[in-house]
Amino acid sequence: MSDLTRRALLAGTVTAAAAASSVPSILPARAAAPAAGRQVPGIYRYKVGEFELTAINDGVNLRPVEKGFVVNAELEDVKEALEDAYLPTDKLGIPFNQLIVNTGRRVVLIDTGTGGQQAPTAGLLIENMAAAGIDPKAIDTVLISHFHGDHILGLRTKEGELAFPNAEVQVPEAEWKYWMDDGEMSRAPEGRKGNFAAVRKTFGSIAKDVKHFDADAEVVPGITAVAAYGHTPGHMTFRIASGDDQLLVLSDTANHPALFVRNPGWHAVFDIDAAMAEETRRKIFDMAAADRLRIQAYHFPFPGTGFIAKDGDGYEFVPAPWSVVL
Amino acid sequence: MSDLTRRALLAGTVTAAAAASSVPSILPARAAAPAAGRQVPGIYRYKVGEFELTAINDGVNLRPVEKGFVVNAELEDVKEALEDAYLPTDKLGIPFNQLIVNTGRRVVLIDTGTGGQQAPTAGLLIENMAAAGIDPKAIDTVLISHFHGDHILGLRTKEGELAFPNAEVQVPEAEWKYWMDDGEMSRAPEGRKGNFAAVRKTFGSIAKDVKHFDADAEVVPGITAVAAYGHTPGHMTFRIASGDDQLLVLSDTANHPALFVRNPGWHAVFDIDAAMAEETRRKIFDMAAADRLRIQAYHFPFPGTGFIAKDGDGYEFVPAPWSVVL
Repeated sequence: MSDLTRRALLAGTVTAAAAASSVPSILPARAAAPAAGRQVPGIYRYKVGEFELTAINDGVNLRPVEKGFVVNAELEDVKEALEDAYLPTDKLGIPFNQLIVNTGRRVVLIDTGTGGQQAPTAGLLIENMAAAGIDPKAIDTVLISHFHGDHILGLRTKEGELAFPNAEVQVPEAEWKYWMDDGEMSRAPEGRKGNFAAVRKTFGSIAKDVKHFDADAEVVPGITAVAAYGHTPGHMTFRIASGDDQLLVLSDTANHPALFVRNPGWHAVFDIDAAMAEETRRKIFDMAAADRLRIQAYHFPFPGTGFIAKDGDGYEFVPAPWSVVL
Repeated sequence: MSDLTRRALLAGTVTAAAAASSVPSILPARAAAPAAGRQVPGIYRYKVGEFELTAINDGVNLRPVEKGFVVNAELEDVKEALEDAYLPTDKLGIPFNQLIVNTGRRVVLIDTGTGGQQAPTAGLLIENMAAAGIDPKAIDTVLISHFHGDHILGLRTKEGELAFPNAEVQVPEAEWKYWMDDGEMSRAPEGRKGNFAAVRKTFGSIAKDVKHFDADAEVVPGITAVAAYGHTPGHMTFRIASGDDQLLVLSDTANHPALFVRNPGWHAVFDIDAAMAEETRRKIFDMAAADRLRIQAYHFPFPGTGFIAKDGDGYEFVPAPWSVVL
């Protein structure tokens, strides 16, 4: 009699399967079901009018919660906010969510993830696209919200090849101007120089093919760039409209909602002009709340789509329920 | 020049792909990416101690929001609660979430879904298990929380075969006693007689093999039944414990959280003894909130796992963030 069976007997919970564990014919079933040991693909579909959207998770960065991550808040207040959200207080999982928009005429990828070059628990975009049945060759447009590494590095494979070989790449003109400027690079704080290098590595050899857009441009029929400066000099959100329906892709208007939606006045270390980023955040959140506008956000828990509600001095992110019906 | 290309030109957003749309070599990419037209599989993994859990969605019932669904609330108050939760007010999507627990020794399925016999938008359990890499033959234990059709019908295929042929089936003794009693069936309101028939159809031919358990029984090593009577006479929740970690499987302690977590005093039409169900709900929610206990719920938006927080007169469901890291 096996340990399992003895223990089950002692506990008074003998099961047919346990009692019969010496019968070889039913053993294979158990042996055939080892733990999977990994998460399922991070993919989720929903519709905006006639457009079919697929949110895709590139993974997560598990960031130690340390002094300086929120530059204008005490560490104990940050930990309290995390605890209020039932999150661990030692490490914050910051997800990376890309969005694919199939308009029926175009297949558009918004931001490209880390390319497996920023965190050991990220770099899953291509694998998760495959799980969603989307071939990287089918992407005909890549829209970039801003030039931080976790939004642009996935444009290339680790080997440096273009990951979306048939795609036209469209970027904010103001981002291009800032990050491709050698003067800005030389004046930038040390901690930002790696990002300047990443921008050059990513775009350098295709510079002549990259298209630039300004705020309010309809970059793809149905998708309009909306200025959201501050996080970076040319940081863009995107309004996606089809029929009477619409969605606002927030990009990095706020980082993790447990901190920066709840406390819109908190400044993440990533903001280049934090005061402007806060002003932008409050303006966009006020609009989203007033219009009950559905949003999609890059660093919110996957799939990162839902609503922004006013809540006291701050706001609350209300995730849209997972729906089996598109 | 195609319509697409003309329109793109007029909008001032010509893309390389659009401009080149007469070049056959790049056309297949677009043609190869039609809309998927359906949701991805509803599957999600997480761990409780050493146990690996997989939440599986069987689908959803899109229920018209009508007078009588919440038996002790005005329809306008119900619609207001839905609007507060950013949900449609005409139809409520009530999901069906099963849970598979791989303890390392056992593969346990808790509740079995609709078997495709209750709603046109449900019946996906077996298909979604396949997407999760779990063979129905690998299930060695089926635990049933209570005998409502959406929890038991999936024990059989539409053709009446046992869907989990190697599984021992364990059910609450008090449920068996109530639903298999011909006197109870004859005295039951008309609307409940179909459920009595479903119970007989499901369990009749395997009655001698079905194991019965009482409250507080450790039904599988690490999984203990916890009484939650009221919704039905023998309705059970399950406490899953591994190492220092634990989870409470709420079963139908509350139906959709936007209504019945927010308003624990509201009674869903499904409750057999609504007053007792409310008392049970408040007791369990008070405990879950005080202990910050992670929960899994059958009718909450998929994957249906998170926390119950006190919120004014009621409670709030705080979904656990989707995590790529197990």
